[in-house]
This record gives sequence, C-alpha cells and structure tokens, in this order.
Amino acid sequence: MKALGRHVLAEFYGCEFDTLNDIKLVEKIMVNAALEAGAEVREFVFHKFSPQGVSGVVVISESHLAIHTWPELGYAAVDVFTCGDKVDPWEACNYLTRGFRAKRVLAKEQKRGLIFETSPQAAQAV
Amino acid sequence: MKALGRHVLAEFYGCEFDTLNDIKLVEKIMVNAALEAGAEVREFVFHKFSPQGVSGVVVISESHLAIHTWPELGYAAVDVFTCGDKVDPWEACNYLTRGFRAKRVLAKEQKRGLIFETSPQAAQAV
Repeated sequence: MKALGRHVLAEFYGCEFDTLNDIKLVEKIMVNAALEAGAEVREFVFHKFSPQGVSGVVVISESHLAIHTWPELGYAAVDVFTCGDKVDPWEACNYLTRGFRAKRVLAKEQKRGLIFETSPQAAQAV
Repeated sequence: MKALGRHVLAEFYGCEFDTLNDIKLVEKIMVNAALEAGAEVREFVFHKFSPQGVSGVVVISESHLAIHTWPELGYAAVDVFTCGDKVDPWEACNYLTRGFRAKRVLAKEQKRGLIFETSPQAAQAV
C-alpha cells in the first residue's frame, strides 16, 4: 500500500507573543521552511487578525504548509503536507521549530491517500 | 482540557476525473463549503498542475480548508480546520462529499492545540 502524501501535524507551544503576532515574520519563516526543505513555492496568503493572531498558507508544488497562531497563548498549529519523494515534511517542521523558537513541540505524521497497488506479477498470480 | 481547533482530515475516493481536474469547479466547491458552514472567507488560492491535479486553500477567519486532487486516481485529500464554536468542520466536510460526489470517504477529527484550563475555583481548591 502506497501513501500519496505525508502530513505532519505539529503543535508549537512556548513561542513568543511578538513572533506569533508579526505577519511578515510568520510569512518569512513559513516560506523559508518550504524552500529549505526543497519545495517549490507556488503561492502564499497570510492574514492578520485583530486584536492578535496570524493565519497563513504556503501552496507548494508538493502540497502545502499552513499555520494558525494564538500569540496570547504562545501557541501555533502547524501543518506540513507533502507529496512525492523530493520533500521531507520533517525538514520543514524542524526548520519551523527553530524559526518560531518553540519550547515544546508535539508532532506526528499522518499518511494521506493510501492506494492499493497491484503489480502485473501479483495480478497474474491471482 | 480545551481544544483550540478541530481539524477534519478526509480522504475522498471515487471522484470523477473531470471534477477533480477543473480548477474553477474545485475552487467553487471549496469556497461554497466554507460559506455553507457559516465561515467567513478571507482569502483563497488555487493552483492547477500539469498534466493534471489541483491544489488550493481557503483561509477563513476560523482557520482554513485545503484540497489536493489526483484526478487520475479519483482521489482528493481534504482538510477542514476550524477554531471557535461558530463553525462545525463536519458541515463543510459533508458539503464537500456531496460537491465532489465522492463514492467513499475516510474522515477523522483531530483536536488541535490542547490547552489546560484552570478555573479560579480549581486554583482555590489546590
């Protein structure tokens, strides 16, 4: 069984208010994380909320990175979704951990799009 | 313990090639799913891949919706991430299931950003 995508869901705790509330900084860290992991950036959109918080997404050829920040709690929800073998989502996740200086990270990988593969040999054997 | 966000990860199988490969249709279904669930749409970006496939994200005030399609496999990876009590991610997910006419859907909800809450009463009791 082959997975089409790898999706890392990460919870970043203990980040600084000013980092998580700075839309330009959040955008820069997210885009750089994608580039650092070898992804091809297609588009990105970021939005600043009032009184605080930033949401944003980087669409890459290999899927996407997303973030939602709660500066008042020092928390950010981070997603790194990649397909193909070229980009390792954990490379981007590790870059983000350093970029946001998260004191505690809970992260796990979820396989997306499990597809059953049959080889001609397997089909013949049936 | 309170969760800041609810994240539905859904795998749509058995969708039609032409639906999953039509960027304008995919965009319309995704944006309408957000609106149907009562979300406030902030921005959206969609990208068409060659020879096939669409990736896109809708940033909403309550977080985001994302999709990546593999038309040749009839498969789409769908995410609906919401925060707050106003929007139910499953409403958007159900709309998307109908919109993409998925024959089989595997979906689960992941809580995001678990925060320990202490009430003044609890603090006094300690």
